[in-house]
Amino acid sequence: MKPADPATTPVPVIEAVRWSPDGSAVRIIDQRALPAAFVERDLRTVEEVCEAIATLAVRGAPAIGVGGAMGLAASLSPFANEPSDVFRRKLAEHAARIRATRPTAVNLPWAIDRMLARARRERGPVTALLAALRDEATMILGEDRAMCRRIGEHGVALLQGKSRVLTHCNAGALATAGIGTALAPVYVAAERGAHISVFADETRPLLQGSRLTAWELARAGIPVTVLTDGMAASLMQRGSIDLCIVGADRIAANGDFANKIGTYALAIVARHHGIPFYVAAPTSTIDVAVPDGASIVIEQRAADEVRRSFGQLTAPEGVAVYNPAFDVTPAVLVTAFITDRGIVEPPFDFVKWREGGEGE
Amino acid sequence: MKPADPATTPVPVIEAVRWSPDGSAVRIIDQRALPAAFVERDLRTVEEVCEAIATLAVRGAPAIGVGGAMGLAASLSPFANEPSDVFRRKLAEHAARIRATRPTAVNLPWAIDRMLARARRERGPVTALLAALRDEATMILGEDRAMCRRIGEHGVALLQGKSRVLTHCNAGALATAGIGTALAPVYVAAERGAHISVFADETRPLLQGSRLTAWELARAGIPVTVLTDGMAASLMQRGSIDLCIVGADRIAANGDFANKIGTYALAIVARHHGIPFYVAAPTSTIDVAVPDGASIVIEQRAADEVRRSFGQLTAPEGVAVYNPAFDVTPAVLVTAFITDRGIVEPPFDFVKWREGGEGE
Repeated sequence: MKPADPATTPVPVIEAVRWSPDGSAVRIIDQRALPAAFVERDLRTVEEVCEAIATLAVRGAPAIGVGGAMGLAASLSPFANEPSDVFRRKLAEHAARIRATRPTAVNLPWAIDRMLARARRERGPVTALLAALRDEATMILGEDRAMCRRIGEHGVALLQGKSRVLTHCNAGALATAGIGTALAPVYVAAERGAHISVFADETRPLLQGSRLTAWELARAGIPVTVLTDGMAASLMQRGSIDLCIVGADRIAANGDFANKIGTYALAIVARHHGIPFYVAAPTSTIDVAVPDGASIVIEQRAADEVRRSFGQLTAPEGVAVYNPAFDVTPAVLVTAFITDRGIVEPPFDFVKWREGGEGE
Repeated sequence: MKPADPATTPVPVIEAVRWSPDGSAVRIIDQRALPAAFVERDLRTVEEVCEAIATLAVRGAPAIGVGGAMGLAASLSPFANEPSDVFRRKLAEHAARIRATRPTAVNLPWAIDRMLARARRERGPVTALLAALRDEATMILGEDRAMCRRIGEHGVALLQGKSRVLTHCNAGALATAGIGTALAPVYVAAERGAHISVFADETRPLLQGSRLTAWELARAGIPVTVLTDGMAASLMQRGSIDLCIVGADRIAANGDFANKIGTYALAIVARHHGIPFYVAAPTSTIDVAVPDGASIVIEQRAADEVRRSFGQLTAPEGVAVYNPAFDVTPAVLVTAFITDRGIVEPPFDFVKWREGGEGE
C-alpha cells in the first residue's frame, strides 16, 4: 500500500472479498441481500464457500476466483494437525468441490489450479503448507486489487474534463476484490477530487445495475442515477452523458467483445450520439484464441428470469422468451479498451499487441 | 361490418371495450389483472367508470376515450325517468367527473366534449336524449374500430414477404376498442393467412409489452416472444427481425414523434441494422401545432416505478432515478407512418400533407 497522497480524498469503496479480522474466514458482502440489506458473511467451511459461490452471494468472475482461493485456504485450517497425507487428501477434495461450483467462469478454476500448484511446490510440514496456501490466496487477492487499481489509474486520464459516466450491469467493486473494472476510473477520479456522477442502466433481467452498481456507488458517496435500459438514448439526446464505460466477459483477438446483454445496444446508441464508448477489463479477459465475436458462444438462460420477475408473473405463463446472458459488440463501436496494462486504441489486434509488449 | 372474405382466417382478437350483452354497461378487460388473470368488468355507475380509468383498468388513449363516452351514457340510464333539468344536471356532473380522471390524455376530453355537443343538439324528451347519448357513444366506438381496421389494411402492405415484427409497449387491441394501431397490420396479416410472429420488448418500467402485448397476441394465436428492452439489438444482429412497428402518443408537424420511453433507442438500433422502422397511429395523433420534437414536453414519472418493481426494492432506497414516460424519436429515423388515411413516406411535412388531401 502506498502512503496516502495528500491531494486525494478518501473514497469509502466497499470490499466485496477480504479476510475476516482474525484471518480465520473469508468475509464477503452477501449480494443476494442487496440493495435491501447490507449483510456480511464469514465463510469458513467448504460447504459455506461452495454455497456462497453457487447462489451468487459472491459474484463477478474476479471476485469468485479470489473468494474461491481464499475459501480453500480457510476451509483447511481445521486440518492443521492432521498427518500430511490426510491434509493433502482434504486439499484435493475441497479444491475439486469449490472448482465445480461454477465451472464456466474462467477465474475460479484458474485460481484453484494456482493454489494446487503452490501446494505441489511446498514440501514442508502441514503447518508450512497451510501457511503457503494462505500466502498464495493473499497474493491472488492482492493481485486482483492491483489489477483494478491500474485499470483505474489508466482510465482516469480519459475522464479529464468529463464528469457524467454511463455504465451497464455491475463491473464494480462488488465484482472484484478491489475497486472494480468499469468503475475503477470513477473511483480514482473521485479520490482525486473530480466531481463525477454515474448513470446506471438497471440491466434487465437480473438488475445488477440498479441493485449492485447503484448501491456500491451510493455507499462510496458518488452521485448515481438509475435508469431502465431503454432510457440511455434519451439521456444522450439531452446531452447528459459524456462517456460510457462497461466491463467485458471475453475480448476476441480483433477487439469484438462479449458482455452483459444490453451492452451492444448501448454501444450503438453511444456511437449514434458521438459519445465515447470504453471497455474496461483485465488483460486476462483477452482471449487471443478467439479470432472474433462470431466465435463467441452465447449462453441462453431460463425464460422465467424474464417471465417471472421478482416472484411475480410479468408475462403470460408459457409465452416464448429470448434471454441470452450476453451479447457481442463489434470492435468498430469501441473507442478504446482500458486494461491493467494501459489504454488500447484502434485498430485492435490483440495478438500483435501481446507480442509487441502490451501497450508499448 | 363487411361480410367475411372467404379467403380470410378468423383471428380471435380481444375486445378491450364494448357494450355488455344487454347494453346496460361498458364491458372492459381489467388490465390490472393481466397477465395473471383474464377478468372482464361491467361498468355501470359514474364511480365505476372513473375508478376504471383512474386505476388503468382500462388504458390506452383511444380505449379511454371510447370507454369514457360509453360510460357516460351507461351511468345516466338510472335517470331516464327524471325531469329534463335533473337529467341534464346529472349529465353535466358525470361528464365533468369522467373528464377529470386523466386530464392529460387528449382522447378523453375530446370524447366527452363530443357527447356534450350531441346532448346540446338534442331537444326531445329525456328518453330521446338518453338514446342520442348511447348512439353517439356507439358511433365513437365504431369509429375507433374502423380507424384501427384502416391502419391494419394500409399497414399490411408493408408486411409483404416479411414475417418477424418487433414492437415496443402496447399499441394493440388492449389500447383501443378495435384491433389496435401498431398491432393492427399484424392482425390483418394473420387474418389473411400470413405466417407472422411478433417480438415484444417487455417495456420497462411498467412492462406493457410483456404483460399486455404478449398476452393479447398469445390469446389471438399469434406466435409471440418476449425480450427485455436491451435485447432487441442482439436479435437484429442475428438477422431475426424483418421490421419494427411502434405506436405514437404525439406526432409533430415535421414527423418527430413521442412514444413510450425506449422507442428512440429501438429506432436507432433498427437504423444501425438497416431494418425498416414504422410508426402506426391515427391521424388524430398528428399535432400540426407542434412544429418538432423539441417542442414536445415529456412527463417525468415517479422514481418508485423504477426503484420498487413488483413490490420489491430493486434499487437502493432514496437513490436518484431518471424516469421519463416518453422519449422523442426524430423523423429521420422513421421509414414511414402508417395512418388510418394511408402510408406517409418521407420527407414528412404534415401541414402540407393535411392541406394536400391527406395521403394523396
